[in-house]
Amino acid sequence: MAPTGWARTWSRQRIASTLALLAAVLLLTGCATRPLDDPLPSWNEGPVKAAIVKLVDDTTRPGSPDFVPEAERIATFDNDGTLWSEHPMYVEVVFTEQRIRDLAPQHPEWSTKMPYKAVLGNDPAALAHLTGAEFFELVGATHAGHTSEQVRAQVSAWLAQARHPRFGRLYTELVYQPMLEVLAYFRAHGYKTFIVSGGTLDFIRAFAEKAYGIPPEQVVGTSYRMQYAFANDVATTTSTGSVMLIDDGPGKATGIDHSIGRVPIAAFGNSDGDLAMLETTTRSAESARRKRLAAFVWHTDAVREYAYDRDTTVGRLDRGLSEAPRLGWLLIDMKRDWKVVFPFEVVK
Amino acid sequence: MAPTGWARTWSRQRIASTLALLAAVLLLTGCATRPLDDPLPSWNEGPVKAAIVKLVDDTTRPGSPDFVPEAERIATFDNDGTLWSEHPMYVEVVFTEQRIRDLAPQHPEWSTKMPYKAVLGNDPAALAHLTGAEFFELVGATHAGHTSEQVRAQVSAWLAQARHPRFGRLYTELVYQPMLEVLAYFRAHGYKTFIVSGGTLDFIRAFAEKAYGIPPEQVVGTSYRMQYAFANDVATTTSTGSVMLIDDGPGKATGIDHSIGRVPIAAFGNSDGDLAMLETTTRSAESARRKRLAAFVWHTDAVREYAYDRDTTVGRLDRGLSEAPRLGWLLIDMKRDWKVVFPFEVVK
Repeated sequence: MAPTGWARTWSRQRIASTLALLAAVLLLTGCATRPLDDPLPSWNEGPVKAAIVKLVDDTTRPGSPDFVPEAERIATFDNDGTLWSEHPMYVEVVFTEQRIRDLAPQHPEWSTKMPYKAVLGNDPAALAHLTGAEFFELVGATHAGHTSEQVRAQVSAWLAQARHPRFGRLYTELVYQPMLEVLAYFRAHGYKTFIVSGGTLDFIRAFAEKAYGIPPEQVVGTSYRMQYAFANDVATTTSTGSVMLIDDGPGKATGIDHSIGRVPIAAFGNSDGDLAMLETTTRSAESARRKRLAAFVWHTDAVREYAYDRDTTVGRLDRGLSEAPRLGWLLIDMKRDWKVVFPFEVVK
Repeated sequence: MAPTGWARTWSRQRIASTLALLAAVLLLTGCATRPLDDPLPSWNEGPVKAAIVKLVDDTTRPGSPDFVPEAERIATFDNDGTLWSEHPMYVEVVFTEQRIRDLAPQHPEWSTKMPYKAVLGNDPAALAHLTGAEFFELVGATHAGHTSEQVRAQVSAWLAQARHPRFGRLYTELVYQPMLEVLAYFRAHGYKTFIVSGGTLDFIRAFAEKAYGIPPEQVVGTSYRMQYAFANDVATTTSTGSVMLIDDGPGKATGIDHSIGRVPIAAFGNSDGDLAMLETTTRSAESARRKRLAAFVWHTDAVREYAYDRDTTVGRLDRGLSEAPRLGWLLIDMKRDWKVVFPFEVVK
């Protein structure tokens, strides 16, 4: 029996809408299974990738016994050596030494005064023995009297042209592609991603939003006391140059307590300076209430990047290397676990 | 002509789906125009409500010349007197005095030592003359040796039963309904809402998420130096009781610089302690690049809440009252602008 005109029309409509539905279903299910849609395509398959995927899945899949409400989904990341290269020297140290040289003509007293003298005399031995406090004194001297916006502009201008001595690339090109994928993967599952760095706030805020998609309010870093003035109807907040909080080592645990106020679900570091962050994530009173993950990026790849752990002063991983297996922390073996290191290696 | 069986079925389906579509359209268009869907139903119509709605619309409507990208949509709110009642006394002061009395048996030295003596002797004259620094010393003494989680548990337990002397309500019932609507309205348009308070971080974090929908990482407040320890595989971050940053007055500008790192688009306060926050929002170097809004909640309603401005020490608004018209800041006149003050007045 031939259908009537209406029925024929309907029939065509029905076929069209059924095909559209089918296409949508195929697209959706296809997206979930096609290798192209692997959320971590620069990671080799293995226990580390599997553990990261499992943590995100277990904490975000509705009905999962380890489900974490979105408000509690916090993941923290060290910057130097975890999100970008820190060898042969921390990028902020290279920048700060340049700033000290640039500002030296205005500070004749620096030529005979440590730690400035070590920089101006270009004395590698003295520089190698600078303490953290001495380094942050140098940074403070370059920030003093400047607003945060001015400091960020100085950092941006420098990052736009300074190049890494070995790779000849801008430092912002030397971010780790696999970690960019981890950041995006956590965020796609409702996590807020924070940087918790020993670097200073304005240094990191100058590039973190563009390089990592991390906004200024999600950067926890070493900070200086600021002073406020309102004169001629202009409000100005400038740095005193005096340290308020060194966000490194134990300061990472106190920095998280201060700026986030919640124990992270996941924390990624690469050196003993991150121990307190990983400990506070996995071993504080709040830790046991939720599933957690802690991981070190382990620099094992001298060919594509660098190989170092116990044998370096820059980004030294010594106690952490012993603690990781004991405390159930992941070691991300760069050579084994990463298909590519930098974004420019990715085949488009 | 009678339709065939198929056509009859389709016809019914078509009618049903057309009706469903019509219902959806009516629901959606209805939602956008019904007065019930006013985003600020507890606000009387007038220049203040109109200015708030215009700011949100101008900064979030695609194509608007004042459009602000979502990452820059930051709105900051003082807490005491702006989001909840602060009279006859700041709630944290009432709490802290109770904590000092509770802890006094463990501190016999307090009975003869200021500022503790002023609390324990219940000396209103001495209490009235406590400086901010003395108050934060008292708070520090009650926090010292405790983790943030412990302090928040103490605050929560107290807030669950302490009642306001005039209203007989829990303090968390004395939040301002019109400001809850402002918070929700900004957030519905992609803004991140922050508390920037002179109160201490853990006091506010104890209730801000439930009361205001503001998570701990969006609370900027007075903070103490914390110390970190890792012993017996347990990570603990405890307060030293020594102030790190007093987030009041100029400290609100430096607190925003430190914790947010961006000049807010909108800032709401109620006292001269908020001047620096409003100035930094509307009069700093970054301010002119975007449209901004600054407003004081002006306590003009002795019947429903309190009436005070220049004549009080708690939440004094003196310079601010003169500066507001000069600098183009809104004065939210509680009596004139708010239909209801507290959530319990809302007719369901």
